[in-house]
Amino acid sequence: MQIGMIGLGKMGFNLAQNLKDHGHEVIGHDVNDEVVEEFIKMDGIHGAHSLEELTQKLTGRRVIWLMVPAGTITQSVMDQLVPLLNQNDIIIDGGNSRYTDTLLRYQSLKEKGIDFLDCGTSGGMEGARHGACTMIGGEDAVFAHCEQIFKDISVDNGYLHTGAPGSGHFVKMVHNGIEYGMMQSIAEGFEVLSKSNFNLDYEQVARVWDNGSVIRSWLMELTQRAFSKDANLDEIRGKMFSSGEGKWTLETALDLGVPTPVIALSLMMRYRSMEDDTFSGKVVAALRNEFGGHAVVKS
Amino acid sequence: MQIGMIGLGKMGFNLAQNLKDHGHEVIGHDVNDEVVEEFIKMDGIHGAHSLEELTQKLTGRRVIWLMVPAGTITQSVMDQLVPLLNQNDIIIDGGNSRYTDTLLRYQSLKEKGIDFLDCGTSGGMEGARHGACTMIGGEDAVFAHCEQIFKDISVDNGYLHTGAPGSGHFVKMVHNGIEYGMMQSIAEGFEVLSKSNFNLDYEQVARVWDNGSVIRSWLMELTQRAFSKDANLDEIRGKMFSSGEGKWTLETALDLGVPTPVIALSLMMRYRSMEDDTFSGKVVAALRNEFGGHAVVKS
Amino acid sequence: MQIGMIGLGKMGFNLAQNLKDHGHEVIGHDVNDEVVEEFIKMDGIHGAHSLEELTQKLTGRRVIWLMVPAGTITQSVMDQLVPLLNQNDIIIDGGNSRYTDTLLRYQSLKEKGIDFLDCGTSGGMEGARHGACTMIGGEDAVFAHCEQIFKDISVDNGYLHTGAPGSGHFVKMVHNGIEYGMMQSIAEGFEVLSKSNFNLDYEQVARVWDNGSVIRSWLMELTQRAFSKDANLDEIRGKMFSSGEGKWTLETALDLGVPTPVIALSLMMRYRSMEDDTFSGKVVAALRNEFGGHAVVKS
Amino acid sequence: MQIGMIGLGKMGFNLAQNLKDHGHEVIGHDVNDEVVEEFIKMDGIHGAHSLEELTQKLTGRRVIWLMVPAGTITQSVMDQLVPLLNQNDIIIDGGNSRYTDTLLRYQSLKEKGIDFLDCGTSGGMEGARHGACTMIGGEDAVFAHCEQIFKDISVDNGYLHTGAPGSGHFVKMVHNGIEYGMMQSIAEGFEVLSKSNFNLDYEQVARVWDNGSVIRSWLMELTQRAFSKDANLDEIRGKMFSSGEGKWTLETALDLGVPTPVIALSLMMRYRSMEDDTFSGKVVAALRNEFGGHAVVKS
Repeated sequence: MQIGMIGLGKMGFNLAQNLKDHGHEVIGHDVNDEVVEEFIKMDGIHGAHSLEELTQKLTGRRVIWLMVPAGTITQSVMDQLVPLLNQNDIIIDGGNSRYTDTLLRYQSLKEKGIDFLDCGTSGGMEGARHGACTMIGGEDAVFAHCEQIFKDISVDNGYLHTGAPGSGHFVKMVHNGIEYGMMQSIAEGFEVLSKSNFNLDYEQVARVWDNGSVIRSWLMELTQRAFSKDANLDEIRGKMFSSGEGKWTLETALDLGVPTPVIALSLMMRYRSMEDDTFSGKVVAALRNEFGGHAVVKS
Repeated sequence: MQIGMIGLGKMGFNLAQNLKDHGHEVIGHDVNDEVVEEFIKMDGIHGAHSLEELTQKLTGRRVIWLMVPAGTITQSVMDQLVPLLNQNDIIIDGGNSRYTDTLLRYQSLKEKGIDFLDCGTSGGMEGARHGACTMIGGEDAVFAHCEQIFKDISVDNGYLHTGAPGSGHFVKMVHNGIEYGMMQSIAEGFEVLSKSNFNLDYEQVARVWDNGSVIRSWLMELTQRAFSKDANLDEIRGKMFSSGEGKWTLETALDLGVPTPVIALSLMMRYRSMEDDTFSGKVVAALRNEFGGHAVVKS
Repeated sequence: MQIGMIGLGKMGFNLAQNLKDHGHEVIGHDVNDEVVEEFIKMDGIHGAHSLEELTQKLTGRRVIWLMVPAGTITQSVMDQLVPLLNQNDIIIDGGNSRYTDTLLRYQSLKEKGIDFLDCGTSGGMEGARHGACTMIGGEDAVFAHCEQIFKDISVDNGYLHTGAPGSGHFVKMVHNGIEYGMMQSIAEGFEVLSKSNFNLDYEQVARVWDNGSVIRSWLMELTQRAFSKDANLDEIRGKMFSSGEGKWTLETALDLGVPTPVIALSLMMRYRSMEDDTFSGKVVAALRNEFGGHAVVKS
Repeated sequence: MQIGMIGLGKMGFNLAQNLKDHGHEVIGHDVNDEVVEEFIKMDGIHGAHSLEELTQKLTGRRVIWLMVPAGTITQSVMDQLVPLLNQNDIIIDGGNSRYTDTLLRYQSLKEKGIDFLDCGTSGGMEGARHGACTMIGGEDAVFAHCEQIFKDISVDNGYLHTGAPGSGHFVKMVHNGIEYGMMQSIAEGFEVLSKSNFNLDYEQVARVWDNGSVIRSWLMELTQRAFSKDANLDEIRGKMFSSGEGKWTLETALDLGVPTPVIALSLMMRYRSMEDDTFSGKVVAALRNEFGGHAVVKS
């Protein structure tokens, strides 16, 4: 199948190669011309230097995969793309769009006669390249038209038509919420290990935990890999960035009235890690000093 | 190797079979005679109706694996067993003993000349039967004497000499703390799914998440399996029992000054699940009524 | 001063009496005619059966206090009220509006030439009647025009011009977030007391804690009062409703990147209290059964 | 009444003065001789340079108040003191001893014929000097003998015979758990304020919140006081030390199966504040890098 790929970053670039390996014809576009140049050097891959060129190179019912940052960029690309499309052309948003945005976009595209699928894509760069996990929301007929794509780029049993439009991004968002919790769980465990008197080899512990234990998981495999490169993680600081999906999961839980303490705390410890000192800590320290005369640390 | 197995419950029974499959001679004992009878019906497995019989049937430097409930039962079995042993016989505590208890027992046995290994055993019943994950603490020479046992009963790369006595149970304890957090993470995610307007097939979601996603894991595989048997878990109540290791991990974290919010909350939500109503809830409801005249639900 | 009061519920009714006691002329309106009838029975209080009547009875630069439920009702009342107002008439929103809504309303009214103050009002019904705590956001000149009102209805030192428009509702929102945390703190403490083996008199404990201790507070006084009426709170269930401000505080914290674990958990335990059983609990119970054969409670 | 006071630190010194003001004869002892010298300079106060001197100066049924650090020091002082006492002399432990230690000490003293009261003392230094809150556990007759002491040093309604031995320290411990939660609640609220775009005067906000609001409390009064000295708390760092009682409350809750998320997180955020970087943060950062290629901050 002929597929337009907009956004050739870490994920899009790998997905395009993955698609090509499965016999699809990929025409890639990126806002960065140099990336496009790099892209088309690959055997059997085509590039487009503009959205116009991209849409012109696609024939018949177009299928265009967006792999760009969620939010304003996704919206902006769609706004430019839609006027170039014909009725029933298909946009697949493979990025991490907030599902509530996706619902609005689906409606808006529907009114214009453009078909749409929202695809949550998991598995990291390795997955994008060699077999991802894809969760797809959208109308049955549109999904059916594209099913082979998802089947090809995913590992066995690794794609699912989750249901109505928006459900793909919704399921992916919750996946990331779980991911936050799992990562924080592993991280807390290793911090307990690190503070103990036992002289443990973290890489070996991660290795044994990844083989046969209840907590064996890809994240534990990656934990082993990280420790294999830097035995005590001395080279990096514990700054835990976050890019939205954990927050959205929490906000969604708040709207639905679901208690999600672990997801909430996983996110909050990330926020906390971005602060070198905290105003809340100052307040508590000041209060202890006021009522009990407890010493404070001067800044 | 000849191995005595004390405790033929879910874990010990399976471990014994696993050992036998690998060519070891197992002599099993259980406080419940009927279990012993059942046990010895298996081809190539021997039984003992008392600790005396067990120790008499073992020749040379004895290796005795304890697979009994942690705490007073483990202590009681050891107290009865030790007088029947010779110098340098080896006790392996394969159960979920608290590592601080283990440290005391190691010292006590050391003074009596009995060798000791603490083995944290993970992987559930399936692991015990077909390939477990084992984390072993103890002196190098004692470990070396028994290493083949651990290698045989574990999956590839699934055993580790974690270090000094107590470290096996310590690492297993932390493993279980992580397990609590991972399970709660998954559980929270599915509750968010369940409250959404999307009509999701939980088994299929668990299936897709277990194939290629960042959160693929044995626990996700088991989640799929659980939903395959009961699509909405209608048949069970959400009572989350806990058996100690999560609490010990948290207590250890408190002693070490390690913030472990996710492990803490995973345990606390289990506690909360055991209550049908809460005194704390009554207090908050009463306070809202006092200051704001907000209605309360009468009991 | 002449003041129109729209909304004669628990808070508005008491505030109107409070205003009257301080020599203000109050004209009250409520969507419920019977409430208006009841209202005007009070000596020195006037009523209006419609917004038109209300605005006609107010002379000069009108000051109208809205004390209606936040959200769509507040918006709807404003939409009906504004066409009846003159330039520089003043609307005071004394309810619990979300400060982001308040910011939009301020802008919208500004464009129409209507002045506006947002007033967070704390202290419960007793405070409304006998001396409240008021936090007022708005332009300096508008605040100055109304300052005497806030001074009169508040306790000594109990009113503050917090700053720019929206800041009154913002500060009140955060106040409620703190309130959630304080209430949950007290509640958890009493649940620990209730599970201990000591046979404690909760009312007496609350009483002693309210006199001289570090945690003496109005909430502790109310705790004593609640226990004085129902020694073990046997008559009420622990259903903890929430009405928005705690959630908004948390959502704001998430937007600002502030870790607020205590406010988050206070809200989540409220959500949890509304569930008799949880889907998350079912998932954890099912998983424990899958890997360890642990028994589940059948529903 | 004649009272021996052992330990003339911040709390003991103030309590001794408080007792003297109420007509009691205080004989004070401290391990630090200079403190004793300072002490006896006060009008109407007596000192003792040793436990022997202290016990000799007390006549009849001795009443000795211990105000020394909990744990080994309290135990050590008791061990030295008891041989110097007669049957039915009374030791009051006014410090923050863990209630489980208190239960053991009560039993041990009981066997020796020494009477004992455990007194949780709250209210900070100001309370100790001018009116504290005291929670007293112990046998009825022993309490009755000493009741006037507690009545005199406490504010009105500020003392309570909580019940059986140990209950005084237990109730005080839970009080401190609540205190942790309340302080963290206030602190989180102010951090939200500090990150907002509104230019708020923290002292004024604390002041208005302390007058008429639902969250008015002594802690809020102290918050105002702290901000009055250092408007943005620029001079102190947010290091939140903890001295045991919050941890014990949490450990007790874990033993009793009580979910106390707010108390738990209040403690954990204190632990977190003692770390400049975290191992858990490093693990999460490393994992994000592994699966998503997300940048890490180098150390």
